[in-house]
Amino acid sequence: MERKEGMTMLYFNNDYAEGCHERVLQALMDSNLVQTPGYGQDEYCARAAGKIKELCQCENAQVHFLVGGTQTNLTVIAAALRPHQGVLCAVTGHIQGHETGAVEATGHKVLTLPSRDGKITPGQVSDAVNAHRRDPSFEHTVQPKMVYISNPTELGTLYSLGELEELSRVCRELGLYLFLDGARLGYGLSARGNDVTLADLARLCHVFYIGGTKVGALFGEAVVITDPELAVDFRYHIKQHGGMLAKGRLLGVQFDALMTDGLYFSIAARANRLADQLRAVFCELGYPFLVPGVTNQLFPILPDKVLDQLAEGYVFCEQERIDESHRAVRFCTSWATTQEAVDALCADLRRIGPIGIKFTTRLLDF
Amino acid sequence: MERKEGMTMLYFNNDYAEGCHERVLQALMDSNLVQTPGYGQDEYCARAAGKIKELCQCENAQVHFLVGGTQTNLTVIAAALRPHQGVLCAVTGHIQGHETGAVEATGHKVLTLPSRDGKITPGQVSDAVNAHRRDPSFEHTVQPKMVYISNPTELGTLYSLGELEELSRVCRELGLYLFLDGARLGYGLSARGNDVTLADLARLCHVFYIGGTKVGALFGEAVVITDPELAVDFRYHIKQHGGMLAKGRLLGVQFDALMTDGLYFSIAARANRLADQLRAVFCELGYPFLVPGVTNQLFPILPDKVLDQLAEGYVFCEQERIDESHRAVRFCTSWATTQEAVDALCADLRRIGPIGIKFTTRLLDF
Amino acid sequence: MERKEGMTMLYFNNDYAEGCHERVLQALMDSNLVQTPGYGQDEYCARAAGKIKELCQCENAQVHFLVGGTQTNLTVIAAALRPHQGVLCAVTGHIQGHETGAVEATGHKVLTLPSRDGKITPGQVSDAVNAHRRDPSFEHTVQPKMVYISNPTELGTLYSLGELEELSRVCRELGLYLFLDGARLGYGLSARGNDVTLADLARLCHVFYIGGTKVGALFGEAVVITDPELAVDFRYHIKQHGGMLAKGRLLGVQFDALMTDGLYFSIAARANRLADQLRAVFCELGYPFLVPGVTNQLFPILPDKVLDQLAEGYVFCEQERIDESHRAVRFCTSWATTQEAVDALCADLRRIGPIGIKFTTRLLDF
Amino acid sequence: MERKEGMTMLYFNNDYAEGCHERVLQALMDSNLVQTPGYGQDEYCARAAGKIKELCQCENAQVHFLVGGTQTNLTVIAAALRPHQGVLCAVTGHIQGHETGAVEATGHKVLTLPSRDGKITPGQVSDAVNAHRRDPSFEHTVQPKMVYISNPTELGTLYSLGELEELSRVCRELGLYLFLDGARLGYGLSARGNDVTLADLARLCHVFYIGGTKVGALFGEAVVITDPELAVDFRYHIKQHGGMLAKGRLLGVQFDALMTDGLYFSIAARANRLADQLRAVFCELGYPFLVPGVTNQLFPILPDKVLDQLAEGYVFCEQERIDESHRAVRFCTSWATTQEAVDALCADLRRIGPIGIKFTTRLLDF
Repeated sequence: MERKEGMTMLYFNNDYAEGCHERVLQALMDSNLVQTPGYGQDEYCARAAGKIKELCQCENAQVHFLVGGTQTNLTVIAAALRPHQGVLCAVTGHIQGHETGAVEATGHKVLTLPSRDGKITPGQVSDAVNAHRRDPSFEHTVQPKMVYISNPTELGTLYSLGELEELSRVCRELGLYLFLDGARLGYGLSARGNDVTLADLARLCHVFYIGGTKVGALFGEAVVITDPELAVDFRYHIKQHGGMLAKGRLLGVQFDALMTDGLYFSIAARANRLADQLRAVFCELGYPFLVPGVTNQLFPILPDKVLDQLAEGYVFCEQERIDESHRAVRFCTSWATTQEAVDALCADLRRIGPIGIKFTTRLLDF
Repeated sequence: MERKEGMTMLYFNNDYAEGCHERVLQALMDSNLVQTPGYGQDEYCARAAGKIKELCQCENAQVHFLVGGTQTNLTVIAAALRPHQGVLCAVTGHIQGHETGAVEATGHKVLTLPSRDGKITPGQVSDAVNAHRRDPSFEHTVQPKMVYISNPTELGTLYSLGELEELSRVCRELGLYLFLDGARLGYGLSARGNDVTLADLARLCHVFYIGGTKVGALFGEAVVITDPELAVDFRYHIKQHGGMLAKGRLLGVQFDALMTDGLYFSIAARANRLADQLRAVFCELGYPFLVPGVTNQLFPILPDKVLDQLAEGYVFCEQERIDESHRAVRFCTSWATTQEAVDALCADLRRIGPIGIKFTTRLLDF
Repeated sequence: MERKEGMTMLYFNNDYAEGCHERVLQALMDSNLVQTPGYGQDEYCARAAGKIKELCQCENAQVHFLVGGTQTNLTVIAAALRPHQGVLCAVTGHIQGHETGAVEATGHKVLTLPSRDGKITPGQVSDAVNAHRRDPSFEHTVQPKMVYISNPTELGTLYSLGELEELSRVCRELGLYLFLDGARLGYGLSARGNDVTLADLARLCHVFYIGGTKVGALFGEAVVITDPELAVDFRYHIKQHGGMLAKGRLLGVQFDALMTDGLYFSIAARANRLADQLRAVFCELGYPFLVPGVTNQLFPILPDKVLDQLAEGYVFCEQERIDESHRAVRFCTSWATTQEAVDALCADLRRIGPIGIKFTTRLLDF
Repeated sequence: MERKEGMTMLYFNNDYAEGCHERVLQALMDSNLVQTPGYGQDEYCARAAGKIKELCQCENAQVHFLVGGTQTNLTVIAAALRPHQGVLCAVTGHIQGHETGAVEATGHKVLTLPSRDGKITPGQVSDAVNAHRRDPSFEHTVQPKMVYISNPTELGTLYSLGELEELSRVCRELGLYLFLDGARLGYGLSARGNDVTLADLARLCHVFYIGGTKVGALFGEAVVITDPELAVDFRYHIKQHGGMLAKGRLLGVQFDALMTDGLYFSIAARANRLADQLRAVFCELGYPFLVPGVTNQLFPILPDKVLDQLAEGYVFCEQERIDESHRAVRFCTSWATTQEAVDALCADLRRIGPIGIKFTTRLLDF
């Protein structure tokens, strides 16, 4: 490894390793001594909400700002469901496996659907709901009432507009809420080939959120509620779950900055381009991917020996063991990733090179 | 009102109307592009925790950083109690009346004790526990297992060291946890006449927290767990309740700054002095207080007419109607309050003067 | 004490010391080997529900059978409320102090109202709701959404028809559910001076239940839901809380028997008459009551010395210490109480006599 | 169908279609007018508990009586786990799919393990626990702390003594509780080839229960807690979840009868023998089973046409569609099944005969 001598490690393990984008920071500095009402009832929040509603082309939406993703997921789900209802979710969904049972802690079952690419299909949803409704003992099982999807998914894949329209249609026909977790939404909406807009999401989802934590903010998720029923009394739920920041304006200030002059989208697009550079090198070296991707997350499958060498200079994330000598790992870029860091990683990858990998059968499946 | 012409309102309604102290802000700026691990496992958090443990003279304590007070209260209480156990609390306690049932939402009953000054006594605790234990149907009632106190209380009053020692002794004898909510702890520890230190709290409480949100930080509460049993697996609970900030280092950076060179205490002391100036003017004008106080919160009782005039230039908080023509209200100072704002308020108070108040009987009780 | 020689103790401590009325037992024996579907979907339940709906003059009501009172209370409340909502209740209410926090365990706060006689007034309800709605920080407090009353109350007192009509009116005006716990409803509806009928309850309450456990059944409470919104999916909630008896027909069989030929009311009326006999003797001997009563529960205040003597032959229930030498206790009659037992107790009371009681001031208040 | 003319349907769909065994009923009749303390603190419960502890050869066990299975499962699990902990369970487990999310409603995630025969292996448990512990983000996932198994399983299969010993060993090594749901335990312990005793269960499980509802009682499950930590305050949990029967002696009376002269085991053994007679006829006619079995539940796979004919005279339970023309169904015998009913079913099965079934590939897998 060229770069490890005396250098600090380079973090590619996630998209929240730094603070916030300079324009967000500047906005926080500029507003620091302004006095405002607390708990999100200030002018900054109102202005940021206004910009979001405009981008969503949905004046009647409610916009609420919460601090983090798990908090947002549990608050939205607990507010929406009655006690006997559950939420359908890909087995890879964040609420299923990475939130310490936060949804269950509010009393609701996560009803998992199998998925290899992080997405679920309208057919899976209607099959699950119909199976429940046709079961003569239906009252002995949890009633599906919400569909949770992430876009981009936890595996970096994207729903197309057509897929979302179909999911939305099925949800409405069956009387289910469609909830989209947009923790990394910026990277998705800015990705090559994406055909979905905020206005589409506002039209197709009952509730979704625009993630700030991973896209340029210090923290913060902007929840957009388009379904009037879900909007009733929502602030009580935020408070009850400890998500109502006393200095709520911090969220307004940040989202106001992000939604000004397209900052949110431009910084995400840049991160996607850097990810593409990495993607190209992995391809060039013949490494397969766990799933194909177009956003800021990559899941290449590499030999343990390569990963051991990389680990001396780079921090990445373990995803899944593939066979006795290969693992899928995750590399992320972000609004903060530098071209220099990407170049260094690309150079080191090429230096190590494709060391005579003998792929096992399972790998060939991908 | 002298100052209302063309001027913005002055906020005395709470201690979270601005952003953060300049040294905290500087620390956030300085660290903004440093890459760190997420979720509080970074060097900044470690350093801040180290400083806190040193101040607490308690190397074995665990220190965790959470975002806000309600979140901290619900997380600590839910982590500590088994399902049939409840928490004793003054009827004025924040968890009882100002957190939208957050504790109940985790399944636990708040067992209220009467209080006029926001404090509870060791005798109230032992009476409640003994009544439970002597009840032949004790299994039909919630088992008291924790005592929740705030210091300063929600009414700005303070526990003395002697009172805390006695409460702590009773809790230990009865096998209850003592949990101190220190959302405004800085103002308390810096108050005239206070004889309590962080080291005392670490010695006397099983768990307590040092509030940052209201004492100079953008947000953040530092939980100090001294009881080894309560410390087990605590990070799971933080995550489950959505309190684990992805960029956890933001909390470490802020508390590191606050705990450097006594910043936390000096800014609180200054706010207390400003509050004393206000207190003196209320006294001078003959207005009584709902409760006596020495910290940054004042609860004067004023005629509606005076309050109506004040409301033209100042924002304050409604506390309680006293009789048909008087209300108790709350004025707060904070680390951000300016001498100019206090001077303006004092001048306006004197200008309005004591307009022939005829106090009702109830007022004379105070 | 005359009767203690070689005799077993006589239980007056509650109304569930025996099994069930002989006609209920006979119905269980008669149906024992009949095969039916499980989980309450059998002919017996349908027939019992039909009789109850007829008595309630409410064909559109849903009738569900649950096993016990705590289970019924927690199931109804959890099914009705959204997470941020709470239930208003007299401080003496069963859900507040005698169910081990069962309501809180489902996530909801019990919002207590002061009461000396076990009842709450329409004014208390509207005051509490209006205080919540007028609070500028209303979202920081639990939203009252249901009123829970017991009739007869835990102190044996009764609501008049006029009082219930007024409570119902206030609830409807404010958008609250009125829920009546009728664990001892039979004794109330059969009491001297009662002017309330099942049809009144069906008209005035959104949901109420007819208690079987304490009025002739082995166990069982018949929930009558008249509000269509509360009725939706109610069986899921019963199942989720473990209240759906596999052999649900046991509940149907028992309520069918109780609702046949007025058995439920006649056995309650008889118990009330026996209680009146006891009441007359306490009066005759000059003992005051904690609260006046007309149902099967009596709360006389007696000197400790008298109680000590009584305790040698009778089991009764401690209610409250009145002063250093007097306690209020509870005596209950039931469908199973024999005339002989009442006669024995009356005789023993007279034998002990009014031993020079010097009542303290507090007693004279009652 | 021979028997359908004018006859009522014969229920083979479950083992709770009737009331209770005559000796249980006699005991309820005999004790009906005896006065006892409430809530399970009576002599009948004490005596039944004593007999169970003797059979378990475990004097230090706690025995508690609850009304039903779902209630028992949720109470035991909620009492045992801290909020961030979950329970490992076969995907077929009753708590996973047939209790309307009762466990999740208490805040805990059910962590499913794949299973074809209703059982889980020690290796599955240790793999799941080790995967959790090795996960660098372990605090972001639910901590496995309990293993839930059913014996017999929901598919009628049985654990051998060796399998239970190994599961128990793994649980102890890993610090997990082993909880055995014995809703149909009698049928299991009385089955051909079973080598497990109550004493074994008391030795190997931390908590288990002896099901009464499906084995001769009107209702009731006897929980045996052998782990002292799990036993602490258990009655509070029963009360909180609405499982504490006011007339608790009804449970004691029934279990006392069942545990006298081996009644519990002899009636289960008889039901197993009747099931064997049915099993033999299905085999003789060439119908395969979804899983092999030795207890009172059978899961034959039959052509839709045969099932349509059977449905005219018999009630059975749908289990699973196998292919476009075959379904697996469940037939149950019980303590109440008559020889005549079994003979009628066998005769009708033979009369219909094996109508040229052409099994699909999937069927041959079994």
